[in-house]
Amino acid sequence: MPVVLVGANVKNKANFLPVAWFTVAAHTPPKVAVALNKAHYTNQGIKENGTFSVCIPSEDMIEATDFCGLFSGHKTNKSTVFDIFYGELKTAPMITKCPVTLECKLDKVIDNGSNEMFIGDVTSTFTEEKYLTNGTIDLKKTRPFILSLDDRNYHTLGKQKAKAWNIGKNYKP
Amino acid sequence: MPVVLVGANVKNKANFLPVAWFTVAAHTPPKVAVALNKAHYTNQGIKENGTFSVCIPSEDMIEATDFCGLFSGHKTNKSTVFDIFYGELKTAPMITKCPVTLECKLDKVIDNGSNEMFIGDVTSTFTEEKYLTNGTIDLKKTRPFILSLDDRNYHTLGKQKAKAWNIGKNYKP
Repeated sequence: MPVVLVGANVKNKANFLPVAWFTVAAHTPPKVAVALNKAHYTNQGIKENGTFSVCIPSEDMIEATDFCGLFSGHKTNKSTVFDIFYGELKTAPMITKCPVTLECKLDKVIDNGSNEMFIGDVTSTFTEEKYLTNGTIDLKKTRPFILSLDDRNYHTLGKQKAKAWNIGKNYKP
Repeated sequence: MPVVLVGANVKNKANFLPVAWFTVAAHTPPKVAVALNKAHYTNQGIKENGTFSVCIPSEDMIEATDFCGLFSGHKTNKSTVFDIFYGELKTAPMITKCPVTLECKLDKVIDNGSNEMFIGDVTSTFTEEKYLTNGTIDLKKTRPFILSLDDRNYHTLGKQKAKAWNIGKNYKP
């Protein structure tokens, strides 16, 4: 799973939680979903403001990201871990250093037992020219990292192996 | 995003769709979620039977996986692409060759515009001894692959970079 930092203002202070249980939920309108354990401090902030962010860190932010997962916002003020900015929604804190950030307006909360799923409409996406190749986000430049939950390791992204919607064209089952 | 094959019986025939919009939805009880475009053939099968599978292919299955994404079950019979088996739920087809497969009972369908999110309870998980190290699934052995949607490339998993819930212990913000 890719590691993202979910940002939310809790009691008017920015807080960030690393999350691997993240997915795009819809193409049109663009929506994302994150599944957070109900005990997390972040959840109340998302409900308070109806907004959150999904910030995709790069490999060189592994330590800071892991720090945010080790210490809960209940006890640790994480508003100064990163240089942050706010967008149009005003209450979804985003991390300046993250190559890609999504600003989200809460659409639904789904109760799944131990976890709540927050589904949000992506209202803005932020990136920089330097992370693009031919107008699209280039993972060789953004260098996201991946969590293997079973053995609790962060992995880098490996080699480009094949073109999707292409390599299977001549496959004979 | 990791690439998974979602399996469902549609009109009593096994069908498989590669999906990158997949996440774990809850720890307890264990649930997963997949976000499928409403146009997909697979959706009707999941609704018909109230069951589906999530099969995690390895790198050497990239071609067959991509084939399943190129040709819709509306026109192509994909029931013979893989050697398959069924579990307790009887109607969720699973791929024998996939290192890890999850058998799921449909819990909820969430309408997200262009896409439907199917949330399922994981009733069984199948793997083999040869994919484990010290009792946990070893990604060096299962070798999942990843889709970069923006540039439509499949990537391998890269190097183990750091221990999670550990490397951030001494981080000073």
